Amino acid sequence: MKLWDKGFSTDKKIDHFTVGNDRELDLLLAKYDVVASKAHAKMLGKVGLLTETEAQDLVKELDVISKSIEKGEFTIEQDFEDMHSKIEFLLTEKLGDTGKKIHTARSRNDQVLVAMQLYLKDELSAIKSEVKALFDLLLQLADEHKAVLLPGYTHLQIAMPSSFGLWFSAYAESLVDDLYFVQAAYKIVDQNPLGSAAGYGSSFPIDRSFTTAEMGFETQKYNVVAAQMGRGKTEKATAFGISSVAATLSKMAMDICLYMSQNFDFISFPNELTTGSSIMPHKKNPDVFELIRAKCNKIQAVPNQLTLITNNLPSGYHRDLQLVKEVIIPAIQDTKACLELMTFSLKEVQVNTTILEDPKYDYLFSVDTLNELVKSGMPFRDAYKTMGKAIENGTFKPKKDIEHTHEGSLGNLCLEEIRQKMGQVLA
Amino acid sequence: MKLWDKGFSTDKKIDHFTVGNDRELDLLLAKYDVVASKAHAKMLGKVGLLTETEAQDLVKELDVISKSIEKGEFTIEQDFEDMHSKIEFLLTEKLGDTGKKIHTARSRNDQVLVAMQLYLKDELSAIKSEVKALFDLLLQLADEHKAVLLPGYTHLQIAMPSSFGLWFSAYAESLVDDLYFVQAAYKIVDQNPLGSAAGYGSSFPIDRSFTTAEMGFETQKYNVVAAQMGRGKTEKATAFGISSVAATLSKMAMDICLYMSQNFDFISFPNELTTGSSIMPHKKNPDVFELIRAKCNKIQAVPNQLTLITNNLPSGYHRDLQLVKEVIIPAIQDTKACLELMTFSLKEVQVNTTILEDPKYDYLFSVDTLNELVKSGMPFRDAYKTMGKAIENGTFKPKKDIEHTHEGSLGNLCLEEIRQKMGQVLA
Amino acid sequence: MKLWDKGFSTDKKIDHFTVGNDRELDLLLAKYDVVASKAHAKMLGKVGLLTETEAQDLVKELDVISKSIEKGEFTIEQDFEDMHSKIEFLLTEKLGDTGKKIHTARSRNDQVLVAMQLYLKDELSAIKSEVKALFDLLLQLADEHKAVLLPGYTHLQIAMPSSFGLWFSAYAESLVDDLYFVQAAYKIVDQNPLGSAAGYGSSFPIDRSFTTAEMGFETQKYNVVAAQMGRGKTEKATAFGISSVAATLSKMAMDICLYMSQNFDFISFPNELTTGSSIMPHKKNPDVFELIRAKCNKIQAVPNQLTLITNNLPSGYHRDLQLVKEVIIPAIQDTKACLELMTFSLKEVQVNTTILEDPKYDYLFSVDTLNELVKSGMPFRDAYKTMGKAIENGTFKPKKDIEHTHEGSLGNLCLEEIRQKMGQVLA
Amino acid sequence: MKLWDKGFSTDKKIDHFTVGNDRELDLLLAKYDVVASKAHAKMLGKVGLLTETEAQDLVKELDVISKSIEKGEFTIEQDFEDMHSKIEFLLTEKLGDTGKKIHTARSRNDQVLVAMQLYLKDELSAIKSEVKALFDLLLQLADEHKAVLLPGYTHLQIAMPSSFGLWFSAYAESLVDDLYFVQAAYKIVDQNPLGSAAGYGSSFPIDRSFTTAEMGFETQKYNVVAAQMGRGKTEKATAFGISSVAATLSKMAMDICLYMSQNFDFISFPNELTTGSSIMPHKKNPDVFELIRAKCNKIQAVPNQLTLITNNLPSGYHRDLQLVKEVIIPAIQDTKACLELMTFSLKEVQVNTTILEDPKYDYLFSVDTLNELVKSGMPFRDAYKTMGKAIENGTFKPKKDIEHTHEGSLGNLCLEEIRQKMGQVLA
Repeated sequence: MKLWDKGFSTDKKIDHFTVGNDRELDLLLAKYDVVASKAHAKMLGKVGLLTETEAQDLVKELDVISKSIEKGEFTIEQDFEDMHSKIEFLLTEKLGDTGKKIHTARSRNDQVLVAMQLYLKDELSAIKSEVKALFDLLLQLADEHKAVLLPGYTHLQIAMPSSFGLWFSAYAESLVDDLYFVQAAYKIVDQNPLGSAAGYGSSFPIDRSFTTAEMGFETQKYNVVAAQMGRGKTEKATAFGISSVAATLSKMAMDICLYMSQNFDFISFPNELTTGSSIMPHKKNPDVFELIRAKCNKIQAVPNQLTLITNNLPSGYHRDLQLVKEVIIPAIQDTKACLELMTFSLKEVQVNTTILEDPKYDYLFSVDTLNELVKSGMPFRDAYKTMGKAIENGTFKPKKDIEHTHEGSLGNLCLEEIRQKMGQVLA
Repeated sequence: MKLWDKGFSTDKKIDHFTVGNDRELDLLLAKYDVVASKAHAKMLGKVGLLTETEAQDLVKELDVISKSIEKGEFTIEQDFEDMHSKIEFLLTEKLGDTGKKIHTARSRNDQVLVAMQLYLKDELSAIKSEVKALFDLLLQLADEHKAVLLPGYTHLQIAMPSSFGLWFSAYAESLVDDLYFVQAAYKIVDQNPLGSAAGYGSSFPIDRSFTTAEMGFETQKYNVVAAQMGRGKTEKATAFGISSVAATLSKMAMDICLYMSQNFDFISFPNELTTGSSIMPHKKNPDVFELIRAKCNKIQAVPNQLTLITNNLPSGYHRDLQLVKEVIIPAIQDTKACLELMTFSLKEVQVNTTILEDPKYDYLFSVDTLNELVKSGMPFRDAYKTMGKAIENGTFKPKKDIEHTHEGSLGNLCLEEIRQKMGQVLA
Repeated sequence: MKLWDKGFSTDKKIDHFTVGNDRELDLLLAKYDVVASKAHAKMLGKVGLLTETEAQDLVKELDVISKSIEKGEFTIEQDFEDMHSKIEFLLTEKLGDTGKKIHTARSRNDQVLVAMQLYLKDELSAIKSEVKALFDLLLQLADEHKAVLLPGYTHLQIAMPSSFGLWFSAYAESLVDDLYFVQAAYKIVDQNPLGSAAGYGSSFPIDRSFTTAEMGFETQKYNVVAAQMGRGKTEKATAFGISSVAATLSKMAMDICLYMSQNFDFISFPNELTTGSSIMPHKKNPDVFELIRAKCNKIQAVPNQLTLITNNLPSGYHRDLQLVKEVIIPAIQDTKACLELMTFSLKEVQVNTTILEDPKYDYLFSVDTLNELVKSGMPFRDAYKTMGKAIENGTFKPKKDIEHTHEGSLGNLCLEEIRQKMGQVLA
Repeated sequence: MKLWDKGFSTDKKIDHFTVGNDRELDLLLAKYDVVASKAHAKMLGKVGLLTETEAQDLVKELDVISKSIEKGEFTIEQDFEDMHSKIEFLLTEKLGDTGKKIHTARSRNDQVLVAMQLYLKDELSAIKSEVKALFDLLLQLADEHKAVLLPGYTHLQIAMPSSFGLWFSAYAESLVDDLYFVQAAYKIVDQNPLGSAAGYGSSFPIDRSFTTAEMGFETQKYNVVAAQMGRGKTEKATAFGISSVAATLSKMAMDICLYMSQNFDFISFPNELTTGSSIMPHKKNPDVFELIRAKCNKIQAVPNQLTLITNNLPSGYHRDLQLVKEVIIPAIQDTKACLELMTFSLKEVQVNTTILEDPKYDYLFSVDTLNELVKSGMPFRDAYKTMGKAIENGTFKPKKDIEHTHEGSLGNLCLEEIRQKMGQVLA
């Protein structure tokens, strides 16, 4: 049963091609369609487009469907092109003409829009929580290991002393930035599009403020054409948010894979968190971090995928927009899985506390040693040349008892200040 | 004179390859380097790393340089690899050893970071103003032409009545969303990185809160490793912001090019705003809008360019990051030019007021006509089938005196509410 | 059963995260793993690493597995992480120690490489055939409709006369270019990587020329490190090939959607090939072409997805490369579906033969009319000005009996020459 | 002087916006415009659209312009919007009406197309030569250092013995693959578009076979609409070609940066090829390789940039296509610079010959040691378990006198076979 059935049979091949994997993805979205349908039914009752009884009957049946979704019993059979058809079928089966009336003053376009935006709101909230959990862990690890030094690299060359305190909390503070984008995406998504119908509104006297409040949107997307333009745009906003988070996770995963290499040997993980090789029995591979890196890099491709699908389309709905769903939903799932796995795995990180005992890291201290010369009054450029010569002549002696005291330095991590920043962005 | 000169001559070829177009781009950034250098000098004076006289001398000379930049007299000759070398050269020429001391407790890395972030702050502010100007114009045009109807399309098929009021204000409301990302980018950029030195801080007792206040940053990027990670990340945040704006401009330009085609003929522009053809004398081409579209599509490629340049690099500075500059700066300039030109051109838009007199647009009214049947009590699906038959039989009669009254519809544009939204995001 | 099982249980969560959707995708690849395993077993027999009986037993059992795959009876249960584990399990179940010996002198790395490359060869061949079928149809349509004129646009402005002959065959000739990239991809894929083991070869005296011939590869990827680098690279080569084809299909789909709009009305399709709307009963939407456009735009994002996943990884295998599979395989399936649907649908295209009777298209003939002036001796620039004035004064009279005779023009389509080009690229 | 000047002045702002940086880029293209103009003039003479004298005069003056370009004396002043206007101005200044006639039967569209394709042919040829030079050097280095062992990594974990012979020649063989795409691009570009005029051909009886032969194109792009579609498509074909090469260079640069790190210390370069740091005097940074990596990663973004600019544009010229030039030309210049610098620098590579003396690399030999057990008759899986235990118990003894003899392995590099492959793809 297709909603737009006009009496002639559409070719099967076309049918399969156009439906795609909508049914599968719709199982995730169905509960949001029910939420929106309930709000819509109540509103139709309120403005008199339905009788009070009709509205109540619809809400009751929608509650039944909602429960079946919760229990995992809701299915979308091959006969239905999507969840919307199936839900309307269930309502009509139970309520006859009243079931059909749910579609008054709305279109599949705004139905899809509102369900997707409710879904995105939930997922963005979940992502915020998972980012916060990882953030908290990173600050805790920074605090625990703040005294353990680590070589700091520039150009992959040994440069200056760093520490596990700096390294862990750098990623924490970086996640704060990512949340600015997640929050921006949330704001964009949190605007009720219901009532835009096919993108040009309706001649029915609907009450959009009512549905906005009913569904818990902060505001509505007023202009109906703008609401329709939200298809693709809200998903891209979400994609910017998750790809910001993904970039940070990917970079941290890259560091981890490097630091686990025998050539660095800075950190390790228990056997349960590494994998083996079919031909090299001594290997303990960082597969989980490599996959976090790869998945996060794939997530970073999502904004561009969405741009390519939606770009240079004039205003108004196009069927192209259907494909947006199959791009953004798996990317959201991957983001959540990567966040969860990163937090799960980092809890087990084992830190090598004797790294800097290796004499190859002595040069790390060249700058601090140079600074001592400057503090004693030598102009920087002259001190620089003196040090350069000492190093070339092999007469350089590192001053290892460094003290970094300024804000954000390895002796003064400002973890509390970073925690406050996170508090502000989440507020 | 290169800062890292160690006495042996680097091959010319290498030199040319590594310097790239830094000198040219640095002319835009030099004034921000001076601002940051002044703050740094004052701070060095305050904490006693310079004498008060030394600090004052440096500030005085930096003010001289600042004025030469303002007047367009500052140049970066081939002998200097970038603005930093040139400015330090000028200071040393004037102040001798004192000039050299400006580099105490900083590195070129945090110099570049802070100058770039000050630059990005200024540009993001400018972009906000230009978006606001376009927004205001769009609301004004929406109000002026709110009574003029326009066909609304779905699937590029004639669908439902729309209006110039809806069309103009849809892009206005869409720009509000884009500003959420511009604002997020601004927040990310507005964190002082100065003091992170080469990415691992300094053993000097610098006062980062002082420079933060002095330069007007809202906060500092505390963690020095995180501050260094800002290279590439602040630019990508900016890229997300401008590419959101660009997507909206591109879509509007696509509409305009279509609407100017003789097959639509919805709008036109005075001759001065169109261009001709070398071989088709009757053509009045929408080049300016085609170029806005193309430039905005190119801008939308920028986040991916930056991701490709920075991705899978472990933490710590890499020379790769130099290339970020030549990607983001022209994109910012293009964004501003496109905003300016769009506003400039739209002021002259001429609207066709008789579009719907063409009978091919009669079908636009099918839904509203159908709704009348529903209002009179017929269930939606039955009304739908009745209408479908009338259209197939050619007996359909459009009801053209439509009334759309709900919020955001063509009879009730909610321009004031949209204006308030913009006020909130800018607050 | 995981190949690298070392006695301790890996956490379930990790397990689920790392296996991903490999099992599902591997069902498509299993038959190629069997082909490669057979070649490998025969080679091991030939060089004496297996006895002749062992080799024959393995080949016999692999043939049994091959048949079960053909019949759709082969499955990969949750106990197995991929097809390789399952196939080895089946062999060992039947043949005991002999089954285990199939893994001599190979690694999962080169197993995956060779199976994927055999798969890609088959798919690229299938794509070539489908491109050829569409090409043939386009030439046939061009020939059928060569006399029907069409407005030619520049800047979406009415420009010069075109024809359906030109339009259909333009896409045919464009597909020839795309096949250059498909062929290049085929060449890159057609190099045997088996024997590269984990990317550094083997101390066993294997015979790679033998397996190369046995599997029908044109040559081998000699260098074992280069063979390993093929992971990701062969897929990206394929992605370049299919995204070239996709760009052409997407552009043609855009034209079709525009030409089906009531504002153009150049072509139409039977009801069976269009879809309806839930709220606008008169609509006949080009969903199938919109989805071809969208899917082809998504396919064009694939090279960038693969670049992001693989970029800046040093040489040698990384687990990141596993994700390449889930990107390229669905994109290949989509390419084939789009090609098939485009050919299937275009067979039914209905061409409007009276387009140019509409007087708005009179200006199409301005250039040809101008050319008459030039042929009669007036310098081009003067003729151009004369024509421009006539058009401005409204005294322009189109000369509609145009004759375009040069190669590739609407009067001389050169379909045979285009067909020969296609023949050459396929040779 | 603008070609399409119609008597009213276009706004300055628009003018600046629309011309962009065309004048600068056109200096690179001007010589190709002259080549095409000469062919066009001769053809016009041949078919009688010009008198023989007119044609000869044009050719003579074009030769004068050609020489001024060669000498670097040709300029495009602010009064001209591009090279085409300037060249036509010069011809008209000298030849009066005859100068104007050069534009008979062509349009700026096919002028731009043909000049760009001639340019691309030259650049792709140059790139082929530079790839060949790097390839030859890599084979030579592979041969020189074939006996020097190197750890082979998988998952960045120490895995199996590799060698500098394998490492250098892996990149050589990889470049062969890249040339398949460069060659495919060349084939696509090598089709004469001249005569397509504004994309719909001409009513003049031009001889396109003549100009095809005259300019040395292998064939013509017959269909005039297809020829016009080449704008953007030929550039994207080129982009696929150069981004293949760039991916290989980027990966090699990543390896080099890693191998130069003190944590690997596999290779080094003379001081002249590294750069220093302003604050860490001991640093010898691999800037040139970091910039090769970054530039090559930026080049890999070019196909996507071009897709975004051109995607979803219906057929026919759009001004958007102008932007293609400013994307592809710098990318080509960067590709050539990176190839040149990579070859230039690699000539000086210094190889560490004692890497494997470090006991941390002993595990490299675990597989080969395991293979000895297998050769002595133990089933692989059992040998694997035995070895695993030895390693866990610390009783593992590496067998370092490995012999890899099969094709493409470290003992049998097959450099001659790889050289032959390169010969074939270049043939």
